[in-house]
Amino acid sequence: MNPILLVPLAGIVGLTFVAILARWVIKQDPGTPRMREIASYIQQGANAFLRREFQTIAYFIVGIAVLLLIFLEWQIAVGFVLGAVFSLLAVFIGMNVATRANVRTSNAARTSAGKALTVAFRGGSVMGLSIVSLNMMGIVLLMWLFGVGPEDPSGVSLLVGFGFGASLSALFAQLGGGIFTKAADIGADLVGKVEAGIPEDDPRNAAVIADLVGDNVGDCAGRGADLFESGADNVITTMIIAASPFFFSRYGWAGILFPLIARAIGVLATLVGVFLVQGRDEGNPTITVNIGFLGTALTCLAMFYGVARWMMHDMSLFYAQVLGMMGTLVIVAVVQYYTGAHGRPVRETARYAQSGPALGILAGFSYGMESTVWAEYILGVIILVSWLIGGGGLVGIYYIAAATMGIKEMKGIIMAGDAFGPIADNSAGISQMAGLSGETRKAGDALDAVGNVTKALAKGYAMSCATMGSLVILFAYLFEVARLQGIHLTNLNDFWVNLTNPANICGLFFGIATPYLFSALTLRSVNDGAFKMVEEVRRQFREIAGLMEGKASPDYARCVDIATANALRKMLAPTLISMVIPIILGFTLGPWPLAAYLVGVKASSAALSKALFNTGGTLDNAKKLIEEGHFGGKGTDTHAAAVIGDTFGDPLKDTAGPSLHILVKLQNIMSITLLPLFVQYGLNLFQ
Amino acid sequence: MNPILLVPLAGIVGLTFVAILARWVIKQDPGTPRMREIASYIQQGANAFLRREFQTIAYFIVGIAVLLLIFLEWQIAVGFVLGAVFSLLAVFIGMNVATRANVRTSNAARTSAGKALTVAFRGGSVMGLSIVSLNMMGIVLLMWLFGVGPEDPSGVSLLVGFGFGASLSALFAQLGGGIFTKAADIGADLVGKVEAGIPEDDPRNAAVIADLVGDNVGDCAGRGADLFESGADNVITTMIIAASPFFFSRYGWAGILFPLIARAIGVLATLVGVFLVQGRDEGNPTITVNIGFLGTALTCLAMFYGVARWMMHDMSLFYAQVLGMMGTLVIVAVVQYYTGAHGRPVRETARYAQSGPALGILAGFSYGMESTVWAEYILGVIILVSWLIGGGGLVGIYYIAAATMGIKEMKGIIMAGDAFGPIADNSAGISQMAGLSGETRKAGDALDAVGNVTKALAKGYAMSCATMGSLVILFAYLFEVARLQGIHLTNLNDFWVNLTNPANICGLFFGIATPYLFSALTLRSVNDGAFKMVEEVRRQFREIAGLMEGKASPDYARCVDIATANALRKMLAPTLISMVIPIILGFTLGPWPLAAYLVGVKASSAALSKALFNTGGTLDNAKKLIEEGHFGGKGTDTHAAAVIGDTFGDPLKDTAGPSLHILVKLQNIMSITLLPLFVQYGLNLFQ
Repeated sequence: MNPILLVPLAGIVGLTFVAILARWVIKQDPGTPRMREIASYIQQGANAFLRREFQTIAYFIVGIAVLLLIFLEWQIAVGFVLGAVFSLLAVFIGMNVATRANVRTSNAARTSAGKALTVAFRGGSVMGLSIVSLNMMGIVLLMWLFGVGPEDPSGVSLLVGFGFGASLSALFAQLGGGIFTKAADIGADLVGKVEAGIPEDDPRNAAVIADLVGDNVGDCAGRGADLFESGADNVITTMIIAASPFFFSRYGWAGILFPLIARAIGVLATLVGVFLVQGRDEGNPTITVNIGFLGTALTCLAMFYGVARWMMHDMSLFYAQVLGMMGTLVIVAVVQYYTGAHGRPVRETARYAQSGPALGILAGFSYGMESTVWAEYILGVIILVSWLIGGGGLVGIYYIAAATMGIKEMKGIIMAGDAFGPIADNSAGISQMAGLSGETRKAGDALDAVGNVTKALAKGYAMSCATMGSLVILFAYLFEVARLQGIHLTNLNDFWVNLTNPANICGLFFGIATPYLFSALTLRSVNDGAFKMVEEVRRQFREIAGLMEGKASPDYARCVDIATANALRKMLAPTLISMVIPIILGFTLGPWPLAAYLVGVKASSAALSKALFNTGGTLDNAKKLIEEGHFGGKGTDTHAAAVIGDTFGDPLKDTAGPSLHILVKLQNIMSITLLPLFVQYGLNLFQ
Repeated sequence: MNPILLVPLAGIVGLTFVAILARWVIKQDPGTPRMREIASYIQQGANAFLRREFQTIAYFIVGIAVLLLIFLEWQIAVGFVLGAVFSLLAVFIGMNVATRANVRTSNAARTSAGKALTVAFRGGSVMGLSIVSLNMMGIVLLMWLFGVGPEDPSGVSLLVGFGFGASLSALFAQLGGGIFTKAADIGADLVGKVEAGIPEDDPRNAAVIADLVGDNVGDCAGRGADLFESGADNVITTMIIAASPFFFSRYGWAGILFPLIARAIGVLATLVGVFLVQGRDEGNPTITVNIGFLGTALTCLAMFYGVARWMMHDMSLFYAQVLGMMGTLVIVAVVQYYTGAHGRPVRETARYAQSGPALGILAGFSYGMESTVWAEYILGVIILVSWLIGGGGLVGIYYIAAATMGIKEMKGIIMAGDAFGPIADNSAGISQMAGLSGETRKAGDALDAVGNVTKALAKGYAMSCATMGSLVILFAYLFEVARLQGIHLTNLNDFWVNLTNPANICGLFFGIATPYLFSALTLRSVNDGAFKMVEEVRRQFREIAGLMEGKASPDYARCVDIATANALRKMLAPTLISMVIPIILGFTLGPWPLAAYLVGVKASSAALSKALFNTGGTLDNAKKLIEEGHFGGKGTDTHAAAVIGDTFGDPLKDTAGPSLHILVKLQNIMSITLLPLFVQYGLNLFQ
């Protein structure tokens, strides 16, 4: 059998199981009328947001596609549209099932905790599988359309349009969803928990539905689009590297196929993992989920081994992949230590909160910054060692790409676990609002705890993914510059990104600074939305008679509207900025200083996003630790201080941090796409 | 006249005026017995801290000097000791006069606001002048000792020991002082203002003297050592660049003299500025101070013009210097906009504080991050344009150094203004504690406002200084690598810091991450100290009978002790880390990846420190804006939220931010010093 056939085959199997799992989830009983009513609010809110978000994105897609068609090849434009549409489609499917799985999880929890786990995890798996499958199918479809084959691999360069389209969708989805979710969350908490003193997810709080919708459009849809993008970018850019004369003469067509085959393996291994997760009423649910992760990892390793041995005839590629996978585990362990509810950092942060919010936040911020260092150091070592496994030099680059594949392989199952989080979260909210029994809620809380573990895992994982992935994109960019400028590559010094050149230093400086601007804008967008939400919830409490006594219902839809309008308006400026800067630099300073810029953005985002992520995580769990009864427990000044810390940390970890990952990838892949224009029409001031 | 004679001459003139100004300040009347008593507490506390800090530093100096003597030339060891000792001496002189000027300023304010301004500014000028003069004298002394002259300029490389010594002192002084001042400040505020509800600088607060001591040992001594270092580093590294065969064949001895002459100009121009500041009872005191700054700047420009025209015969050097000076002004304006009390960012931050501390802090943090971007972009442009003024290529490097000289020129007067800040601050505290009349306090408040302006100026200035200065150090490092490896330089690509080499990428990653670790450790040191201080002040309120009623005195010395012990213990770990990392990288990866590491540290610190600085500044002034009566004014929830924000921001701007500047410079100059060892004994894994 021709090995490339494995790819569409795996895609079809994956999509078939998407349909099977989705049907299975929908077939489950959605519970009492009150539960259905609440769930329908969430569904309507999420759909309304997605519809308006997709509309906004559509304008951009059409506009940019036309420009690409005019200035570049038609294949780029077609790929761009397909990438954007497939990304949105995967997210749409995944979120639709997620917003149905939540209430069914609640209902299952009424009779069986194990069943609830299975429902929630399979609900999340639909997102995971639809992403990896559609991703791969899109690329194969384009290869067939562009006639890319062993005889003429040059068309691989045209695939970047797909990555660009996926990146743009992802940026919007992550930014829009991230701004929505945190504005709603903070708004709901500030008035509900802090001012009115009512519990989380209380039906009297007007922002509570917006908050639950936020879990879906932010955590679920946003992260999904992010991973769709990083998957597409990674496969395409590794193929571009393999298609360069230097590597094509070495590995031939197999080198180009390798990343695709690896992805197909990933889809099949994800399926294995999904079906290994069988909820049981007894025992630790975290172990149940971990069995799924482990099953996927082992399946991947076994199949990797085979591909490296019998297709690539190069065991070093296998070692590099294993290194990537193992290194990521270490990073996840570091993240767990710094943000885990029972590690020293979280305990210390909670202890400092005894002296008020300022010291608590300072402690959380300092641990967040500290965690950055270890993660970055480990990534540096993975890069160095995988390069050396490949013997260093220009050849070693392919092994860095292989290590990255090792990381990306786990994407489907990690995403399933991540989407499981908001489903469990939503389910807990629905149970609370529908007034289900204490027993059911306890089962829900157990699920929620598992969700926190899988979400933390997904975060550590997404960090490695983004950093390593963007490095591979950077190399693809460099190979493309060499191709377009007709440089015959023989060693690494043929790339002209010498850090001692002031034009490159200037590029690096710009690159290091840009993520700060991007984060600043996204944080302020959340602030703005939260501020408006606070005013609205306060207004409803004031103006709707009988609301506080539970005799009247709040106007949930109004809050969803406010969050939606704010998110859609505020996602534009960061997007435009992130697109304009590389274009200006590309046309003025030229391709090499732009490469230095891209390195700067990458390195700075990697560090900053980790600091933001883990600061938020540490502060969040410090609050939870106190709520478990430590340092005085709920209702004390220490708890109030920790709540303030959590509110500060939330947008760092759920809006600014994740958006940075996409900023990096979008700027990189866009630069590759537009590279022919920079080379042809640019001023090239510093060649 | 031989132009080099201008240098010791200017140094002697400078030191003479240090003596004259110090005598003049001490001759002023220190006021009532109560005022003298309070001032003596501050003096004793500051001296006790300095004595213990100097002891700790002495161990390090002796230890490292012995190692340098064994492994490198004796000149390096001697220079190292002299650099460390001169730095501490300058700081000691400056701080001793500052802790006498404070009470005399208070006393002068009782009769004349203008006189008070003059006393405070001249008190600060002693620090400014002693730094620039001793700095220059030390370098000239070593040149004479090492026999550096037009015939044999090679000894210039031996001067790095002086920079290394100055850097080490500065790191300790800034870290120790920075941790001391913020631990004391936060501790005093948290119990005094927040819990006990007594005003700032209330004599019943046990930590109040520690707080006032902190102003001196942190803001004054710490910043002084920082600027001593950056001056030394800059002159020496520019001389090293000029002494390289490439530049020596171009400019000869004049190229080496140029930075020294520029420094001598700076000393003389500072004197002009100091005597132009003549306090008047009428009129705006900010204008009075600005006249001094303007006088210095114009004097510098005029003398620069002469040197460029008649000594260097190259007007482009003049243009580069003007560019540096003007660019810094723009950066200062940006900092003023973002942190100034009446700009939009501060107003918005105050507005968000209406929804509680979390949104307020988020807003301040986002503006801090945003300001970073513009500052970095401007610096990028200064680098690029000054390089182009010099015609680009390898030659252009010298013009980047010239632009940096243009910035550094203003050091003396800026430092005078900066040291003026804590004197005015202390003076206000003494007036409050001694119960002086409302009229006197009003004059003190006006001075304090001027102090805030000069401090903001000094911050924006120190940022440009540190970033540009460290870039020049980096180039000196590269020229030294080339010299030691026998590379004949003809263009920029002869330096092997290609960003596409994974060993360099790894170095860059490590470099980008390290500042996060450093900041995390310093912030937590402040937290620890503040936590202990809170416990102690609470204990004294609880255990000392009659304290709250003003019938008993608190134990001030105990609080000073706690802050001292904490600061001295906690400054060790960050120092060791910052020294160990480059040594490990230098001996393993080799000199080029170490260069990439240094670039990473520089770029990341530049961005991060600006974000930390300006976040703190914005939050501080948002609090002040509310205290002026906006958004409800003092005593409201909004004010409480802003106070929390300020407490969070304080250590960012006064401990973590400033320490990062020194981290960068220490690591750079230490790497140059140890370079011969890396080249000779290192593994050089990635040559």
